[in-house]
Amino acid sequence: MALDSLRFHSEIDALCELARWCAARGWVPATSGNFSARDAATGRIHISRSGLDKGLITPADLLELDAEGHELSGDGKPSAETGLHVVIYRDRPEAHAIVHVHTIWNTLLSARCESAGHVDIQGYELLKAFSGVATHTHSERVPIIPNSQDYHALATEMAAALAQNHNAHGVLLSAHGLYTWGTSVTEARRHLQAFEFLFEVKYQRLIAAQFD
Amino acid sequence: MALDSLRFHSEIDALCELARWCAARGWVPATSGNFSARDAATGRIHISRSGLDKGLITPADLLELDAEGHELSGDGKPSAETGLHVVIYRDRPEAHAIVHVHTIWNTLLSARCESAGHVDIQGYELLKAFSGVATHTHSERVPIIPNSQDYHALATEMAAALAQNHNAHGVLLSAHGLYTWGTSVTEARRHLQAFEFLFEVKYQRLIAAQFD
Amino acid sequence: MALDSLRFHSEIDALCELARWCAARGWVPATSGNFSARDAATGRIHISRSGLDKGLITPADLLELDAEGHELSGDGKPSAETGLHVVIYRDRPEAHAIVHVHTIWNTLLSARCESAGHVDIQGYELLKAFSGVATHTHSERVPIIPNSQDYHALATEMAAALAQNHNAHGVLLSAHGLYTWGTSVTEARRHLQAFEFLFEVKYQRLIAAQFD
Amino acid sequence: MALDSLRFHSEIDALCELARWCAARGWVPATSGNFSARDAATGRIHISRSGLDKGLITPADLLELDAEGHELSGDGKPSAETGLHVVIYRDRPEAHAIVHVHTIWNTLLSARCESAGHVDIQGYELLKAFSGVATHTHSERVPIIPNSQDYHALATEMAAALAQNHNAHGVLLSAHGLYTWGTSVTEARRHLQAFEFLFEVKYQRLIAAQFD
Repeated sequence: MALDSLRFHSEIDALCELARWCAARGWVPATSGNFSARDAATGRIHISRSGLDKGLITPADLLELDAEGHELSGDGKPSAETGLHVVIYRDRPEAHAIVHVHTIWNTLLSARCESAGHVDIQGYELLKAFSGVATHTHSERVPIIPNSQDYHALATEMAAALAQNHNAHGVLLSAHGLYTWGTSVTEARRHLQAFEFLFEVKYQRLIAAQFD
Repeated sequence: MALDSLRFHSEIDALCELARWCAARGWVPATSGNFSARDAATGRIHISRSGLDKGLITPADLLELDAEGHELSGDGKPSAETGLHVVIYRDRPEAHAIVHVHTIWNTLLSARCESAGHVDIQGYELLKAFSGVATHTHSERVPIIPNSQDYHALATEMAAALAQNHNAHGVLLSAHGLYTWGTSVTEARRHLQAFEFLFEVKYQRLIAAQFD
Repeated sequence: MALDSLRFHSEIDALCELARWCAARGWVPATSGNFSARDAATGRIHISRSGLDKGLITPADLLELDAEGHELSGDGKPSAETGLHVVIYRDRPEAHAIVHVHTIWNTLLSARCESAGHVDIQGYELLKAFSGVATHTHSERVPIIPNSQDYHALATEMAAALAQNHNAHGVLLSAHGLYTWGTSVTEARRHLQAFEFLFEVKYQRLIAAQFD
Repeated sequence: MALDSLRFHSEIDALCELARWCAARGWVPATSGNFSARDAATGRIHISRSGLDKGLITPADLLELDAEGHELSGDGKPSAETGLHVVIYRDRPEAHAIVHVHTIWNTLLSARCESAGHVDIQGYELLKAFSGVATHTHSERVPIIPNSQDYHALATEMAAALAQNHNAHGVLLSAHGLYTWGTSVTEARRHLQAFEFLFEVKYQRLIAAQFD
């Protein structure tokens, strides 16, 4: 138990480091984005508080929630998007870290492909960064959910997207941002970096293909 | 009063940190851009001196002005654009920090949309970073003022833009730069990051839409 | 011998520094990319272990292999792409450092030009950064190998590309990444920086030329 | 004299700092670019040695030359482009620092506009960063010299470009790079930042204008 606790503290440190790294790259502009980790020993979710410049985040800026998203401890208000984290942890039992970022490329790509309801990414070596993917011929379908301020409705949409895309490693909210996750902060970070690289490549190729 | 003074000193530190952060991102190339804060206790404006590389700014590089922009203390010459700060503080009583930056994207977008006199940005989650905005369906109209070296005329144009756009969080000068503000340096920083993100997305989508 | 050993330790330090530099620029997203150096005194290859975030690499993350790629010492698993390093060291006896990176521009360019089997880059002053090149009129033909998960087949393709392009300073794997090398880490770093600069310029000019 | 010497040492430090800053931004990839300062007291030119990664430059990496470019002291070989620095110092007596960089945008723009022999940049507030320019309506004509490995011929071309463009603040070598200068390192840095910003904006607008 003490060892588990130590291990989870180190996950929390890694989560904050990842959030600051995202801030430095402009991936969580203003106070956007949120970051969470689930403690395997307790099932509790630790999530960044609302309205925070992620460049300044420390473990003290995380709130502790139960598995249903009720606040147990911590200062500040949980993010309005907490419900989306709760759904992902519920429907992806292997997930123990979730990252949500707003980047130029995920915004451009999700807005452009929203009407299709998804974007398919295939043929890139970097797809192998996704857990369980062993070849660049893999086709990663990224569901795109229309954005909404009704977070209950969004949570339902997220659950549907996860159910319909068993192998998806992430979900886009249109003109809003990416949700991705991993069994650990390290894996979530790997998925995040792979997605953002692939989004930039995919969007640039979509635009270039317009005049081929 | 001592507490107020302490609080304002900390705003000044935050303002200089923001200016250096902008310099590191290339948002105030050469010696462009300027930064100010208004002391709520005294009504005085503290503004970066002219001709300074903002990557090097410290509190000693700020001049103290009265509410009409007359110099009270400090070394160096106030920026030629001081009059614009004075107008914003006068017509936006809630504003206590103003940021003016020259970026690639605000230059490209303002030049492209100058003839329309404004650019409307709608449908992005990041719009919620603007004070008082609660939904991505919000349409943010950013007025675009033609650039001029007649700073008295520009101040009049700025006053008109502020009067006609009560809810605007920023104003663009065409092929010149952005003015945005906030109730605090933290809010001005949030508005700045949101605008610059949205300008890049908006411009890229305008160009891509040319060949759709 | 002691001096050789000292010299090679310093190469290993430089190699790790280069890997971290690439990570900071987003050139080895997720855990992609790999880096190696060959010890001139022993002929042994020291290569980054598989699955590592290159932003965190230290000399302890390198495995020691013999010239055929058999593991001699070190923790972890060698990269699946070790065979490509072995072929390059075999067929380019002067090479003592190899760098493999996944960047936005090498991905876009290799995917776009894959069907041609190569991309020719000519007319840029920066071509002079390549060893033995003395003029911008030089035409650098970069072979492009189709990507594959069959690393034996890839190694054969790599050997063929090296044999057919005696003067090539690098090889692209389509939608995968660049391999480049040098007589030292310093030279490999110089080749890498030149290639990535030229790839970005070349790709942007190819796209712009579409509507000229 | 001791004060002059102290002042020039501080210029040398600033020059090296500027070179490292350029390296960090990718403006002097591989070992490209060069940097010099002229000592007003002695008329001697101090210039970065050839083949150096500018990210690592220190004052010890500068060679001392007389006004005609003959080497007086220092380790290493002067850059092949030393002759261009000599011509600029000769024909722009006010210049005391020269910067030469290879960037993505100056390469794209100079290659695209080479046949015109120059590029005109007008209408941007940032033009006021150029010495003696007081309005955005200023039109800055940047001469573009075809690239060559015949540095004597290039020096002649440079002299002609300077003679024909008395007010130019910089000269482009096609698909090669920018030369700009200033009365001090601070002014050269300001000119450099302004040019590179304007080149990026100008190139993007030229491309976008293709499909207007």
